[in-house]
Amino acid sequence: MSIIVVGTIGYDTVETQHGGVTDALGGSASFFALAARFFSPVSIVAVVGSDFKPDHMRLFAERNIDLRGLVRREGPTFRWHGRYHEDMNIRDTVSLSLNVFADFRPDLLPDQRRSDYIFLANISPDLQTHVLEQVASPKIVAADTMNHWIANERQELIKLLPRLDILTVNDEEARMLSGEHNLVKAGRAILKMGPDTVLVKRGEYGVLQFSQNSLFAVPAYPLEEVIDPTGAGDAFAGAFMGYIARHGRVTESILRTAVVYGTVMGSYVVEQFSVDRLTALTWEDVERRYRAFIELTDSHHSRWMSQ
Amino acid sequence: MSIIVVGTIGYDTVETQHGGVTDALGGSASFFALAARFFSPVSIVAVVGSDFKPDHMRLFAERNIDLRGLVRREGPTFRWHGRYHEDMNIRDTVSLSLNVFADFRPDLLPDQRRSDYIFLANISPDLQTHVLEQVASPKIVAADTMNHWIANERQELIKLLPRLDILTVNDEEARMLSGEHNLVKAGRAILKMGPDTVLVKRGEYGVLQFSQNSLFAVPAYPLEEVIDPTGAGDAFAGAFMGYIARHGRVTESILRTAVVYGTVMGSYVVEQFSVDRLTALTWEDVERRYRAFIELTDSHHSRWMSQ
Repeated sequence: MSIIVVGTIGYDTVETQHGGVTDALGGSASFFALAARFFSPVSIVAVVGSDFKPDHMRLFAERNIDLRGLVRREGPTFRWHGRYHEDMNIRDTVSLSLNVFADFRPDLLPDQRRSDYIFLANISPDLQTHVLEQVASPKIVAADTMNHWIANERQELIKLLPRLDILTVNDEEARMLSGEHNLVKAGRAILKMGPDTVLVKRGEYGVLQFSQNSLFAVPAYPLEEVIDPTGAGDAFAGAFMGYIARHGRVTESILRTAVVYGTVMGSYVVEQFSVDRLTALTWEDVERRYRAFIELTDSHHSRWMSQ
Repeated sequence: MSIIVVGTIGYDTVETQHGGVTDALGGSASFFALAARFFSPVSIVAVVGSDFKPDHMRLFAERNIDLRGLVRREGPTFRWHGRYHEDMNIRDTVSLSLNVFADFRPDLLPDQRRSDYIFLANISPDLQTHVLEQVASPKIVAADTMNHWIANERQELIKLLPRLDILTVNDEEARMLSGEHNLVKAGRAILKMGPDTVLVKRGEYGVLQFSQNSLFAVPAYPLEEVIDPTGAGDAFAGAFMGYIARHGRVTESILRTAVVYGTVMGSYVVEQFSVDRLTALTWEDVERRYRAFIELTDSHHSRWMSQ
């Protein structure tokens, strides 16, 4: 069964210490779908403008990403321009133009309304709710959000939280949403607001996964060079959700393995600008780094070997 | 066989968002020894002043820490006054008084000169070398350092590095010592400068352990409340070195388990001011959190369970 992802497809202009790109393919739905497709069929629900390139349609289509829910409107495509500091955990938004995305209000297709797996990428809680309400009986609903919505559409977001199985946030967002500075307290406070599982993404410092009876901590995959962090969180979510959809259920061990595949995919994305590394990636690459990650973090096995 | 630790014993004044303490027992050798003694006999080589309290001598002695190498001199004991920001990764040194430590130049006892395990805590590279040269044929030599020595006694430090089995640094120090901003590059560059193993301590973000053929990454143990980070790195080193001394050799799996015990001990220290949590700790506490940490970070085991 296909995963439905609702989010942005856009053109990104990115500046880092390593150079930059102009009007490169980006957007949460792009990164998510290009990662999720390694694990599960995926359908994009998004909007692009009349300037969206046929090459980019092909890029998705050739990877079996379902584009029937990708609407094309007159006008320019969503655009974002960001600039990263030398400390790549920090970035400034130079400009943001919603363009055709501004009045996007999607209607799902009949078969999409019967979907089991829904990912509500980082769009307004109002729009997330609008989409979710069209789905008859989803098995797993996950959502992302950001500081802007936490500050400005807090009530809509709070109402959505009990309907989520999984929420992903970064550390700053976890603090804003919960009002707790300490991340362990923040994660546990957000669990009480509704989701069964809360993933706190900490960039180069890894991920903390909170659920009712468990806490899971993983470091990031250490890289010698990070070219462009854009899309790492969305690719993480794509692999994470894809792995869950492939297994068709949520257990603690499935969640944990999903987090590791998410970490692997996030680590690949940042090695090149835009979606370049994701589109070149093979399943063998994914499995190789998955094994390397297990070796990298293998602490408890070693104990028995050493005694 | 006893571990020899050469470092400071002092009185710390610490201010945090949670309050503070004045003239509380501190110093690298104190935290190290109180952690290491859970795993191995340990001998302190340090100096205290005439104001050093008999209660604090007893505190070590009652825990079977060998104090024959603890010299007492006329004058005040080493003192440090630090203030932590709300982000506890950042602290300011308000004042530092070397006092009797200023002209400390220890002579090891005959049996200490035959020691197998030496930890050179964060003191000048010149003093570290002075101590190391008295030890006939150590099996494992580990050392800590800091930004001050990297900047101001770089040549002495560089000469010491090839004589070390293990070097511990924090992320800022790894960058300064190597000239590389990226931590993976920094860790690998420091390996080339001499030590067989480099531990990069990242505080609340965990540890990266570099050796010739392996990289090991662990998150920190997530805590709901951090009262005082002082001594976490030294307690980490104490448990790490203690575990290695108990096993009498270094293999990748022993190193990894040692890092986990170090992480566990570091996580306890920060729960209270000064050495308070360490002195109250039982072996059962250590083992309980060790098991919790393994559960917390168990990613690869889960994979087989889920398939």
